[in-house]
Amino acid sequence: MSKVITSRAQDYSQWYNDLILKAGLADYSAVRGCMVIKPYGFALWENMRDQLDKMFKETGHQNAYFPLFIPKSFFSKEAAHVEGFAKECAVVTHYRLKNDPAGGVVVDPEAKLEEELIVRPTSETIIWDTYKTWIQSYRDLPLLINQWANIVRWEMRTRLFLRTTEFLWQEGHTAHATAEEAIAETVQMLNVYATFAEEWMATPVIKGVKSANERFAGAVDTYCIEAMMQDGKALQAGTSHFLGQNFAKAFEVQFTDKQNKLDYVWATSWGVTTRLIGALVMTHSDDDGLVLPPKLAPVQVVIIPIYKGDEQKSMIDNKVTELLLQLKALGIRTKYDDADNARPGWKFAEYEMKGVPVRIAIGARDLEKNVVEVARRDTKEKTSISIDGLASTINVLLTDIQQNIFDKAKKYRDEHITRADTWEEFEKLLDDKGGFISAHWDGTTETEEKIKNLTKATIRCIPLNNEQEEGKCILTGNPSKERVLFARAY
Amino acid sequence: MSKVITSRAQDYSQWYNDLILKAGLADYSAVRGCMVIKPYGFALWENMRDQLDKMFKETGHQNAYFPLFIPKSFFSKEAAHVEGFAKECAVVTHYRLKNDPAGGVVVDPEAKLEEELIVRPTSETIIWDTYKTWIQSYRDLPLLINQWANIVRWEMRTRLFLRTTEFLWQEGHTAHATAEEAIAETVQMLNVYATFAEEWMATPVIKGVKSANERFAGAVDTYCIEAMMQDGKALQAGTSHFLGQNFAKAFEVQFTDKQNKLDYVWATSWGVTTRLIGALVMTHSDDDGLVLPPKLAPVQVVIIPIYKGDEQKSMIDNKVTELLLQLKALGIRTKYDDADNARPGWKFAEYEMKGVPVRIAIGARDLEKNVVEVARRDTKEKTSISIDGLASTINVLLTDIQQNIFDKAKKYRDEHITRADTWEEFEKLLDDKGGFISAHWDGTTETEEKIKNLTKATIRCIPLNNEQEEGKCILTGNPSKERVLFARAY
Repeated sequence: MSKVITSRAQDYSQWYNDLILKAGLADYSAVRGCMVIKPYGFALWENMRDQLDKMFKETGHQNAYFPLFIPKSFFSKEAAHVEGFAKECAVVTHYRLKNDPAGGVVVDPEAKLEEELIVRPTSETIIWDTYKTWIQSYRDLPLLINQWANIVRWEMRTRLFLRTTEFLWQEGHTAHATAEEAIAETVQMLNVYATFAEEWMATPVIKGVKSANERFAGAVDTYCIEAMMQDGKALQAGTSHFLGQNFAKAFEVQFTDKQNKLDYVWATSWGVTTRLIGALVMTHSDDDGLVLPPKLAPVQVVIIPIYKGDEQKSMIDNKVTELLLQLKALGIRTKYDDADNARPGWKFAEYEMKGVPVRIAIGARDLEKNVVEVARRDTKEKTSISIDGLASTINVLLTDIQQNIFDKAKKYRDEHITRADTWEEFEKLLDDKGGFISAHWDGTTETEEKIKNLTKATIRCIPLNNEQEEGKCILTGNPSKERVLFARAY
Repeated sequence: MSKVITSRAQDYSQWYNDLILKAGLADYSAVRGCMVIKPYGFALWENMRDQLDKMFKETGHQNAYFPLFIPKSFFSKEAAHVEGFAKECAVVTHYRLKNDPAGGVVVDPEAKLEEELIVRPTSETIIWDTYKTWIQSYRDLPLLINQWANIVRWEMRTRLFLRTTEFLWQEGHTAHATAEEAIAETVQMLNVYATFAEEWMATPVIKGVKSANERFAGAVDTYCIEAMMQDGKALQAGTSHFLGQNFAKAFEVQFTDKQNKLDYVWATSWGVTTRLIGALVMTHSDDDGLVLPPKLAPVQVVIIPIYKGDEQKSMIDNKVTELLLQLKALGIRTKYDDADNARPGWKFAEYEMKGVPVRIAIGARDLEKNVVEVARRDTKEKTSISIDGLASTINVLLTDIQQNIFDKAKKYRDEHITRADTWEEFEKLLDDKGGFISAHWDGTTETEEKIKNLTKATIRCIPLNNEQEEGKCILTGNPSKERVLFARAY
């Protein structure tokens, strides 16, 4: 790597952008607000997607695919949905171009759609319109479906991965015979997300419920997982919604129960997006580049030869061939970079930038001593390690790195949950320390909005199993029965 | 299954539609020309996608993701591309809705885009606009990228899977330093497609090159694989394009070669779509439903218990538990359907409709004799088979079914390649027998168009390594040096 990136201390936001570009995760595109996910970033997304997909299937879900386009009128069917959503979106009005006599192409005015089509900003409406024909009886329930898809929401201010006009996500949409079952599903999927975040992304999260104001448009309850970034800002990493019978009523989806009685179906929806990549980056990375959790890293181990002349190279090659087989046998994703277009030091910096968890440098002199130099990305420690049993040593090391970066992130997160009991404390904490502020709130949307306007902090969530405690609202002094978590957020 | 489907003899086209719906592969949607891919159809697509993806990665390709939207002006940059393409497409003109005082929502006229965006009908233009910034030197080449994406082409007459306004596909886009290398890549990917079609879909294909008239807009050469359906119509199952330097020139993508000389990059693109599911269905299925190749079937084996009372059921359950473990150990995808909501006969018909390759019926009396009844979907043969070693017997049977349906389809295909030496013969063959007609053609687009207008038959391809033979054009009598394959096609 010839250039370094902006440091976090210097400009956190610039550090993030530099990192995404330099590490080869994504690139800007010619289309305003849309990004290109580069091969390295997409390989990371594939690993995340495959693991989530496995967890969805293990909990009984099947994938399907619904249309990209939604008739405009569908958005008006669920009142809260149209109120809170779907205003900033891509609208298809025509279906043909024609040659422009002046050169190029123009939109053919003859090919105007009778009803405009919206590029899906989320798919509840088109999916519940379809479920209407799939669900008649309790025998058709539960219906447990997920789709992996691209989504468009017209964003004015965009950030790579964190907020883009087009992004990739999965959206689960399930239908149930009872409210209890739908709520259990909502909570189950929240737990799947939390497990994925903590065990795979090594990103600690707080599980909670959103306040009415932050609820998904059309939901009865929105559950979420909230993560803490290194700059003290929170990031919503996934949501799971209990939709009650709202969409079933809007799209007339009824079923006959076992007693042959007609009732509306109960619904959930839940999703995570490519935004998770932004969360991953901002949780672990440092001024030298990405730090990736081994379980998700596209390359877990890189091996770099250090040699002079063909004879040394060929000795190293032979040893590496053995090693690669041993590492592969343990399922470790390894790359041997013996390209002769760059010096080892340059390669070291490049793989640090790319966040490869473990680097093995292997030189001719090492070989004589039957050792290699192993460097871990998270702590930057370098150790000389025996080649005998190296693969299993590395395997243990990967597990250790996964745990270590989780512990480090959790320590940071825990240190950044602070109680505030006065407004002055609250404001000072937000400005000086950041993180989650645990404070009493009087439960009204009005107060929540005022706090947001005054401080840019929002209620991230009311934690699940929240301790009940008498107190006074941080802003109004009105009585409160529990603390909630405030933070400035991405 | 309570209803049967239209027979092929009665109405082939209706049979196809009935089958897609009854088997649960896809459904119509509220959006004109767009389909919903149902869980069973999507599971089939996932198996196809995963295998293709593996083959792409084994040949050195990486996945990435490019924007859904393409600025309108991009289409005009490559002259042939805009001429032959991209006229019937979805055009985004606005980016906001607003509340309609009269109720519902309307498009906000204030939110008009300066330049319209086209929903990608294919991604050469946006990708080559991006490659411009990724490629500077020969060291950046080859660039071997694929993306899995949704595509929109505004179709007037649609058929589930075969021709839909939105469909799913993969598109490979590669960049090379030399024409030779790009051509080798084009042919390599054609071979990947042919191998996939024959070894996984059990669908025999002819590899060939398109005539100039049928070439992809912007390509120097279009290679294709052509399959033959049971109604004697051909179906293009995949294409691989050598694009020369056309897109590199249109988007100014140059590189410095080893001699430090600037040159334009050489390109390929190649794709297959969810249309392959239509091909799969029409190659193998029959009047009782789908026939799926075991290698791609979401469920390879279904086990159905036949019993009276709980005691018999529990005996069968115990035996099946063992069997499931043995089948799983061999990697066989098995479903045990012991739901008590339908009689065995109904289940038999249902899994025939769904094309499950092997059905095992297991009854109390069978258990006494230590046998089960095994039925294969392709031939409908039923055999009583010993439970001892059943899993490996089934494993062999699945291989046999895969081979058998390929052989059957190949026999049909081979019997439907017929030579015609006169125009009368040609027309008669098309009407009476169908299939591929091998005939001389004078090589002109004019003649090709005339033949198409007269008969609806098109040149499907000029087979690779085509035998050279002096002859006279079937229509004009002008001299010809080789036969080409004509057919009516999907």
